[in-house]
Amino acid sequence: MSETLLSSRNLAFELYEVLDAEALTQRPRFAEHSRETFDAALGTARSIAEELFAPHNRKSDEHEPQYADGSAVLIPEVKPAVDAFIEAGFQNASRSFEAGGMQLPSLLSRACFAHFQAANIATSSYPMLTMGASHLIETFGDDEQKRRFLQPMIDGRFFGTMALTEPHAGSSLADIRTRAEPAADGSYRIKGNKIFISGGDHPLSENIVHMVLAKLPDAPAGVKGISLFIVPKFLVNADGSLGKRNDVLLAGLFHKMGWRGTTSTALNFGDNGECVGYLVGKPHQGLAYMFQMMNEARIGVGMGAIMLGYAGYLYSLEYARQRPQGRLPDGKDPTAAQVAIIQHTDVRRMLLTQKAYVEGAFDLGLYAARLVDDCETLATEDERQQAHELLDLLTPIVKSWPSEFCLKANELAIQILGGHGYTREYPVEQYYRDNRLNPIHEGTHGIQSLDLLGRKLAQNGGAGLKQLTRLIHTACQRAAGFPALDALRQPLEQLLARLSAVTLALLGDLMAGQVNQGLANSALYLKVFGHTVIGWRWLEQAIRAEQGLALINKGEGNAADADFYRGKLQAARYFLTWEVPSCHHELSLLEARDDTCLGMRDAWF
Amino acid sequence: MSETLLSSRNLAFELYEVLDAEALTQRPRFAEHSRETFDAALGTARSIAEELFAPHNRKSDEHEPQYADGSAVLIPEVKPAVDAFIEAGFQNASRSFEAGGMQLPSLLSRACFAHFQAANIATSSYPMLTMGASHLIETFGDDEQKRRFLQPMIDGRFFGTMALTEPHAGSSLADIRTRAEPAADGSYRIKGNKIFISGGDHPLSENIVHMVLAKLPDAPAGVKGISLFIVPKFLVNADGSLGKRNDVLLAGLFHKMGWRGTTSTALNFGDNGECVGYLVGKPHQGLAYMFQMMNEARIGVGMGAIMLGYAGYLYSLEYARQRPQGRLPDGKDPTAAQVAIIQHTDVRRMLLTQKAYVEGAFDLGLYAARLVDDCETLATEDERQQAHELLDLLTPIVKSWPSEFCLKANELAIQILGGHGYTREYPVEQYYRDNRLNPIHEGTHGIQSLDLLGRKLAQNGGAGLKQLTRLIHTACQRAAGFPALDALRQPLEQLLARLSAVTLALLGDLMAGQVNQGLANSALYLKVFGHTVIGWRWLEQAIRAEQGLALINKGEGNAADADFYRGKLQAARYFLTWEVPSCHHELSLLEARDDTCLGMRDAWF
Repeated sequence: MSETLLSSRNLAFELYEVLDAEALTQRPRFAEHSRETFDAALGTARSIAEELFAPHNRKSDEHEPQYADGSAVLIPEVKPAVDAFIEAGFQNASRSFEAGGMQLPSLLSRACFAHFQAANIATSSYPMLTMGASHLIETFGDDEQKRRFLQPMIDGRFFGTMALTEPHAGSSLADIRTRAEPAADGSYRIKGNKIFISGGDHPLSENIVHMVLAKLPDAPAGVKGISLFIVPKFLVNADGSLGKRNDVLLAGLFHKMGWRGTTSTALNFGDNGECVGYLVGKPHQGLAYMFQMMNEARIGVGMGAIMLGYAGYLYSLEYARQRPQGRLPDGKDPTAAQVAIIQHTDVRRMLLTQKAYVEGAFDLGLYAARLVDDCETLATEDERQQAHELLDLLTPIVKSWPSEFCLKANELAIQILGGHGYTREYPVEQYYRDNRLNPIHEGTHGIQSLDLLGRKLAQNGGAGLKQLTRLIHTACQRAAGFPALDALRQPLEQLLARLSAVTLALLGDLMAGQVNQGLANSALYLKVFGHTVIGWRWLEQAIRAEQGLALINKGEGNAADADFYRGKLQAARYFLTWEVPSCHHELSLLEARDDTCLGMRDAWF
Repeated sequence: MSETLLSSRNLAFELYEVLDAEALTQRPRFAEHSRETFDAALGTARSIAEELFAPHNRKSDEHEPQYADGSAVLIPEVKPAVDAFIEAGFQNASRSFEAGGMQLPSLLSRACFAHFQAANIATSSYPMLTMGASHLIETFGDDEQKRRFLQPMIDGRFFGTMALTEPHAGSSLADIRTRAEPAADGSYRIKGNKIFISGGDHPLSENIVHMVLAKLPDAPAGVKGISLFIVPKFLVNADGSLGKRNDVLLAGLFHKMGWRGTTSTALNFGDNGECVGYLVGKPHQGLAYMFQMMNEARIGVGMGAIMLGYAGYLYSLEYARQRPQGRLPDGKDPTAAQVAIIQHTDVRRMLLTQKAYVEGAFDLGLYAARLVDDCETLATEDERQQAHELLDLLTPIVKSWPSEFCLKANELAIQILGGHGYTREYPVEQYYRDNRLNPIHEGTHGIQSLDLLGRKLAQNGGAGLKQLTRLIHTACQRAAGFPALDALRQPLEQLLARLSAVTLALLGDLMAGQVNQGLANSALYLKVFGHTVIGWRWLEQAIRAEQGLALINKGEGNAADADFYRGKLQAARYFLTWEVPSCHHELSLLEARDDTCLGMRDAWF
């Protein structure tokens, strides 16, 4: 059977040739692990994803959750899938052994989870949301909260949500209106309405733990007045047993274009004045807590976008190999047999573009996951701090770049299948619909561009940016050792040089108080920065591919890998010579502080 | 009420300022018409579109046609809508008075039809298909065929389809297998299977006239052996009454991502050996006939893509004006009221991009419609021939450019609405899904690129290309009279100069027999050529806007139009300075005969 979720050869390339996952086993936290335990976890993930997640991917799209008697009803296939996921330990893949986890590196837990995202993004969302919510309690909750709420989440009995958005407050969380009044018993009474809460109701777990942003009565205005609360669907007694239903009402379900298997809910908190919540950490620190967890969620969204792109790429590749249609331009004999469409150069272009996008982004996503490991397990505080700085800088790219370009990959997958691709009889149109959510949730594309340009670049005196620049320079130096890579390296060097100058100029604007001008074309900046980062990751892959080919030429490598490496080099060539140089136009607009959009007036539309 | 289908101010600008529709009334065929009759027809179209087409657009998406007892069942709202369309004369808007038509210029009938496409692309498809089929019989059928089949189509009693695609023959029509055996009575017996036949069954008309491509027993191989047949759902007696059901079986319905209201059918012809068909025109000329009608169908697809883009643009514009969210970068006071999102520069960028795409494409679509009038009503054979040559050249752009960039516009409309845009509670996600079909049907994007580069450019010694080049040069010369347009004109001049050189080089490849090399990057060529054409159309609009502003400054124009003209200039500036220069990168790849895609091997993926 051909692979449908991701290429295991490419995964091995990433883990063991590019990102050196085995080196992690030399760190004390991962000392019990080895390539064998890593591969065993990956194999289990693949099996469960193929056997329990993928088979109902279409069904959960066609039979979206239904609202009935105040609850959301799902198709029956979802629960056995998430149960198997939990049973196999993936809910706690990164947690320590003593906390009941597998103590896997983040790199490996992300790689495992990628299989579930490719197989069924909607079903995989329920555990992903629970991981995010449980991580918040783990990091900021008190012991009692951990006992009552976190432990059942680790045990797989409770699921979680992140309840941020309100009808009038999406991107602008400063404007939330949900209130939290202190009660005599030390808990709070929550009152407010939340929308677009994914997993806000479902029959998959005994209880649902909502992580709710709300404002205390004495809260300062804006983002500095937001606090974080645990609001369970059912109250939990001191002995851990479930108490009465909390005053959280499922007000309705949203009906989405895609990603339909995940409930998107409107929740009313405290319609009857009896909604009990528990303050997490300190008052007014809620948004800071959320942001501390944002890297995790944003890498998760980026990986989801990548895996939807990956699944579409693999499907359209297999289709292009099987589907005969037409003849090559220089072979018009109408009595000759039709050729497989992969023989047409324009179909190759669409496949190569997909490969460059999804494998480039996949490399970056796993690189970011490995940085999470570095944040937590590098030997010194200094090193860990450095990893944090780089991860913070890259996070907007990890989230936004795949959301844009792996969606584009899905568009190309449809195009390769032609009329068939447009029908629901084939899976690629669903990937496209599902993926369209990713540039929106967890911070829109526009928000990511402001986060990058207006915040991340200058953080810690630009420490992350300096690191990244150094890493790209180093990669270029290593690439210079391979003459075959000259044509790939040079466009990246040129782009980086010009991007660095533009970056300084824009930061200069911001420091001089010219914020509207400096941020006006942040979307262009995001694209160029993203292409620079992905270009770097492709150059890294190309270096490994050259090394792999060199080994084969010396008779030391596996000769069967030669085509794989050549494909890597061709995709790197595509990205570095077709995509990277396209950014010079955007750089010109940025250099000129072009004000076409800034100067447009409402009345002129 | 704000306009939801298209801007009537912009439509008037196109018709009466840019394309001089009134000048057409000086031609004998349109002498009975005037701006008043044009506007009356447009007003009727708008009313019917708003009152009978738009209201069931979402419903026909949510309740797609159902297969029941060998027939397709539609929601009840479709029939009254198409009945009103026919009753008002739009089925025959361009036909002569004596043939029962309105004898409107093609420019006006397209502009009228645009309202229906914006309101409900699926329902508008039934009359559009019928117009295409009836036009084929009108042009190539004999008197008996016209009497039996065309007249009832004109009368609105029969509908039509175009039955080309087969399971193994989509883009490659040379490979169709449907056979036509001569019968003793001069008719034929058709046998074969067709798929993706839009409107292949429905309860909207008494009869359905399928225009079927099939091969005669003595047919030469390939495209030179395809003939065209009329195959009615019900046979038609000599007196015009309906006879027995023909041997055409509705084998099933396809379930599409969008455009769901239009039945997409699998039809079996001759399962019982009794499918009666009638040869249209001469044997083996079927594909030539189809191609002669292709301009019409491809302009129709292009206009459909434009109008979906237009409807999404207007919706997201209105939303952006109403929706408060966040504050400007230089105004972070959290107690200040939120601003409407149209105030955010990145939202303006997304609106301005949509405006540039949809209004640029709308201008081109109507320009092409006016060329159809020129083909038919210019005074001399020479002039008509010239119009034909230019229209032939532009047709792949009219079809493909909006299919790509107005789809992109729909993507941006969703983004402006954020999470709401992703739900089916708002209309923009449906426009996006509907529009995704357009790069596929009536010749995929790849086919259009080959048609342009491999066929149209060199046709008639490059006469069309020479004309287009001259027209763009002339526009640049006129623009040079407006110093404010220098920054818009120059990028177009630079692009055109370089495109012309690349065109000669690629045609040189083709003439030298280097067809694989010459056509390898046809998709890049299509993009650059399309951007040149749209850039030209924006420069033309900018010239008219400058003229309009000059009149206002002299106290002669309507001062209330000043903002409209400024918006035109800003959108022109966006397209000519943000989009047009981006093509230089593609030109470099074309100049270098880059072989990244051509050289990719199947085994390397």
